[in-house]
Amino acid sequence: MTISPDNRHAHVIGLGLIGCSLAMALADVGWSLTGTDVDSDVVRVALERGIIANDSPDGADVVVVATPAGSVIPIVTELLERDGRPELLVTDVAGVKSAIAYAISDARFVAGHPMAGSERRGIEGARRDLFHGCTWVLTPTATTESSSYTKLHTLLRELGVNVIALAPEVHDRLVATASHIPHLVAGALMNEAAAVAEEDEALLQLAAGGFRDMTRISAGDPHIWPDVLIENASTILPGIESLQERLGELREMILKGDASGLLRQLSDASVARRQLPGRAVPASDMVYVRVPVLDRPGVLSEITRVAGDSGVNIYDIEISHNVEGRTGTLLLAIGHDQLERFRSELARRGYAVSLDREDQ
Amino acid sequence: MTISPDNRHAHVIGLGLIGCSLAMALADVGWSLTGTDVDSDVVRVALERGIIANDSPDGADVVVVATPAGSVIPIVTELLERDGRPELLVTDVAGVKSAIAYAISDARFVAGHPMAGSERRGIEGARRDLFHGCTWVLTPTATTESSSYTKLHTLLRELGVNVIALAPEVHDRLVATASHIPHLVAGALMNEAAAVAEEDEALLQLAAGGFRDMTRISAGDPHIWPDVLIENASTILPGIESLQERLGELREMILKGDASGLLRQLSDASVARRQLPGRAVPASDMVYVRVPVLDRPGVLSEITRVAGDSGVNIYDIEISHNVEGRTGTLLLAIGHDQLERFRSELARRGYAVSLDREDQ
Repeated sequence: MTISPDNRHAHVIGLGLIGCSLAMALADVGWSLTGTDVDSDVVRVALERGIIANDSPDGADVVVVATPAGSVIPIVTELLERDGRPELLVTDVAGVKSAIAYAISDARFVAGHPMAGSERRGIEGARRDLFHGCTWVLTPTATTESSSYTKLHTLLRELGVNVIALAPEVHDRLVATASHIPHLVAGALMNEAAAVAEEDEALLQLAAGGFRDMTRISAGDPHIWPDVLIENASTILPGIESLQERLGELREMILKGDASGLLRQLSDASVARRQLPGRAVPASDMVYVRVPVLDRPGVLSEITRVAGDSGVNIYDIEISHNVEGRTGTLLLAIGHDQLERFRSELARRGYAVSLDREDQ
Repeated sequence: MTISPDNRHAHVIGLGLIGCSLAMALADVGWSLTGTDVDSDVVRVALERGIIANDSPDGADVVVVATPAGSVIPIVTELLERDGRPELLVTDVAGVKSAIAYAISDARFVAGHPMAGSERRGIEGARRDLFHGCTWVLTPTATTESSSYTKLHTLLRELGVNVIALAPEVHDRLVATASHIPHLVAGALMNEAAAVAEEDEALLQLAAGGFRDMTRISAGDPHIWPDVLIENASTILPGIESLQERLGELREMILKGDASGLLRQLSDASVARRQLPGRAVPASDMVYVRVPVLDRPGVLSEITRVAGDSGVNIYDIEISHNVEGRTGTLLLAIGHDQLERFRSELARRGYAVSLDREDQ
């Protein structure tokens, strides 16, 4: 289900770093753009620069809500109530997903989160290639219509994005470690350094590449963070405790002069960091599998959940619908070494999994 | 006091990332290089690649000890005892300076620390431009001969390095915040993420630019760290505690839903990060001042200490010696806004400070 060429109008609510970058990226692949922002000056600049044509959402095929996390639910809810068109697709970009994804049960809404950002801010920091090669998480739920998912997936693939599907709570658990806690730590390190620099300005001369790397993200727009941090408190709080414990262990080792303990900890970190994959998983490590499904809401989230529960990572999902519209086929990209586990877990639940090439 | 063109032989002990990079940089400006390493394979590779001509230190003008911090004192001590030439200059590159700088009271030794590194390691990670534009801290003490300092300063300036002089204990206090604690935190974040990724491999897909930035330094060679961390324990331990307290405050704010508190903390960090200067201080913000001094050991460390105690940052020091050799003039680069403070602090101690241009 692709969007026909004469039917590509996206409306962006919230013309900040993410909203404007997305508008510019969509314009590059032929979409027409409109948009709004709470700040009328921002709207004016976006109009002047041709990022948006006007501020009217009328007739938009896709609406992207790119506002801070705390305002997504009321904005999306109001939008879906006001606009009854079944073909409308609405998505958001907030950094925390459970509350949003489960609060909005309209089949036309698919919650999402691009894993991209910048230390630059707002419309001035926007870049048309901000999302190129990035991972964009979609978090379908039991009420997500597969046609909405497919439409959004197609749009994002056009932008050169790697789409992955996760259950909302899995997304939130993982971004606490991969993004939220690192952001807090960057802020704490920077504030600590600023306090030391108050006493001795030479500190700033000693802040070399490593320090600059570690605090870079703290330069970004702070306004997006309080909502995200508070909404994801249940995962972030134990995560900070765990990090504090790790720092406490390192402190003990330093106090005791335990050189071999320190070397072990730092060597483990070094090995793990070197194994961190590049942005995209090499195609040779992936297999595509097909799963015939009934085309009903909830099927996507069920498959996503089975994958998550059995430790299988879904790198990509596409859905093909049969002509009669009652059944369809999911095409999933998973790790080669996870195929058998995934196949047996799905078989237990009555799904047949075949390798894509067996079908051809 | 420059080194004559026919007299430029440097010997590097420890052919790791720093040692090899320095050898390559010195070769680029016309030095001949020899070197050794505890690992004979490393020596063989360095010979094969032409990084060193042979492994004999005989007749070297400068010896750079680029071994882990814990082995610097015995190596330098043995070297200075064995080689009685008064014109010999010995320096090191260890990341912690008080123990080393005060243990070695030979006038021919000047302790130093380049604020440069890489996530790459050893001879394979070496780069001839690793130090270009970096800050290189020298930590003269009461026993440091100013001619040794000048010789090393001249050599480093040839490499495009910004030299700053700090008292050893000031260096150690500042690098705890700017380097040692960030390194521990990067390791803890990486180990935490690796533990979460054991449960759910999708974490690695979500590790975007911010996470990668924050853990990059943990990929570096872990072997240099235990010595540095344990030797600098007295500063690092309270620094970790302070960071843990900051994280604890952020935890409390998240727990209480204190959005304005979180915004304040993250805004402070954002402002501080944006104000972090580039690697070099703009020349327009600096003034050069002259201080006539008696040319005796200890004068450099006294001036450095007065600067440190009064919060004045010395960006650069040069020493010119008068013909008779008993007096000399220090030429110091300091921040424009710190001139009056520096002048009055030095005046209290009997030094006359004049602006460089007043002297011309």
